[in-house]
Amino acid sequence: MSELDDFLALASDLADAAGEAIRPHFRQRIAVDDKPDLSPVTIADRNAEAAMRRLITARFPDHGIIGEEYGAERENAEFVWVLDPIDGTKSFISGVPLFGTLIALAHQGRPILGIIDQPISRERWIGATGRPTTFNGSTVRCRPCPALAAATVFSTSPDMFKDADAAAQARVAAKAKLVRYGADCYAYGLVALGFIDLVIEASLKPYDFSAMAPIVEGAGGLATDWQGQKLSLASDGRIVVAGDPHAHREVLALLAA
Amino acid sequence: MSELDDFLALASDLADAAGEAIRPHFRQRIAVDDKPDLSPVTIADRNAEAAMRRLITARFPDHGIIGEEYGAERENAEFVWVLDPIDGTKSFISGVPLFGTLIALAHQGRPILGIIDQPISRERWIGATGRPTTFNGSTVRCRPCPALAAATVFSTSPDMFKDADAAAQARVAAKAKLVRYGADCYAYGLVALGFIDLVIEASLKPYDFSAMAPIVEGAGGLATDWQGQKLSLASDGRIVVAGDPHAHREVLALLAA
Repeated sequence: MSELDDFLALASDLADAAGEAIRPHFRQRIAVDDKPDLSPVTIADRNAEAAMRRLITARFPDHGIIGEEYGAERENAEFVWVLDPIDGTKSFISGVPLFGTLIALAHQGRPILGIIDQPISRERWIGATGRPTTFNGSTVRCRPCPALAAATVFSTSPDMFKDADAAAQARVAAKAKLVRYGADCYAYGLVALGFIDLVIEASLKPYDFSAMAPIVEGAGGLATDWQGQKLSLASDGRIVVAGDPHAHREVLALLAA
Repeated sequence: MSELDDFLALASDLADAAGEAIRPHFRQRIAVDDKPDLSPVTIADRNAEAAMRRLITARFPDHGIIGEEYGAERENAEFVWVLDPIDGTKSFISGVPLFGTLIALAHQGRPILGIIDQPISRERWIGATGRPTTFNGSTVRCRPCPALAAATVFSTSPDMFKDADAAAQARVAAKAKLVRYGADCYAYGLVALGFIDLVIEASLKPYDFSAMAPIVEGAGGLATDWQGQKLSLASDGRIVVAGDPHAHREVLALLAA
């Protein structure tokens, strides 16, 4: 077993533990609290992150952790786990099974491992540097997309784009074949499966995007910021993920126009 | 067995047949054709509707049928089946399991029976006049929502609202607690389950909305046009579905403002 295999084994345990914590609360009458930024949070988010943090600390006590609900510890460590227990809490509380648990491991600030886990449909994407991305154990691959005019483009919501970002997203949407909203992290998985072509988002945090890079890159795609730089913990939260470099290049030019 | 029971038995057979026709094509590399209105259609849509039409004609040869893919026959009959084999074909071709088969039976133009069937997750809502709505066999109920400020509101896409309709939807969105896009017919089912409060849509056809009325009303909610009139085959395709009459009244006033 390589070190990466050890990390992947733990990452799968984390996803299992998060799913166990989340499933009992899906479509139940649970309290929804508003965080200071007005985003919702529930006992499922908190329990899932707490369970994952316990497992990480027990197995790799010198690794850092950055989580959506419980903040950062040892965030300057060589290896840092980046956790979003429920990406898409708005979907979760609405009863829509497109939310997911996001787990990434960053080495010196660069994501080297990522998981998207949908605990209701039990769908799991796993990506790791230098390895093919898998979906429920089978290798997956992005599809070709020669141009934006042929592309299906997803974003979580039009409301995530503010001011100049909204104008930039509108330039892309106007040239795309199909624009869709609402799939949260699931959309990145659909790029890796080769059923959609692009995800364009803004206002994301490292725990929202870090898992996506190894998953999409391991399926042959690209995951960058709006300037075309590879993603790191320091990225500014404006993301373009593409299955095909042609569509990616065209979108970067439109975003910068 | 009442006549309504006979109709419900057939409706479930139709949903089963549609699911059998659709499942083999989900997340496969299938051709997507653009219809004259540029909406997509696939072999799964066509096969599912053809299978349902065969069953209806065999069982009730004097009933009418209105379907999205194969048009209308005997549409002035006392009983008319209204079929959308895949509501949310854009979701279907993108690999998102929130599309659904919609089946309604209209008596003298009024929907008396409705099914939403999600064939991948195998979720089925059944509504019929005078009976409680069921979800996979269990009775379901809308939740209270005293005001729009507390409401979760869904629409399939912001792009479905044109001109004055877009301004009307924006007035509602500005006052809602949470606005979400992208769930297609599944959102109506979430109203009936009591996890969201409102669906507001426009540009719909009878096969998009007829199944919704018995399902939402049988769960204690309301399904009307933007003027508050109960839905019929003659409705103009602008729909407000609400779990609570207070939120419904508030939305109607804003849409008319």
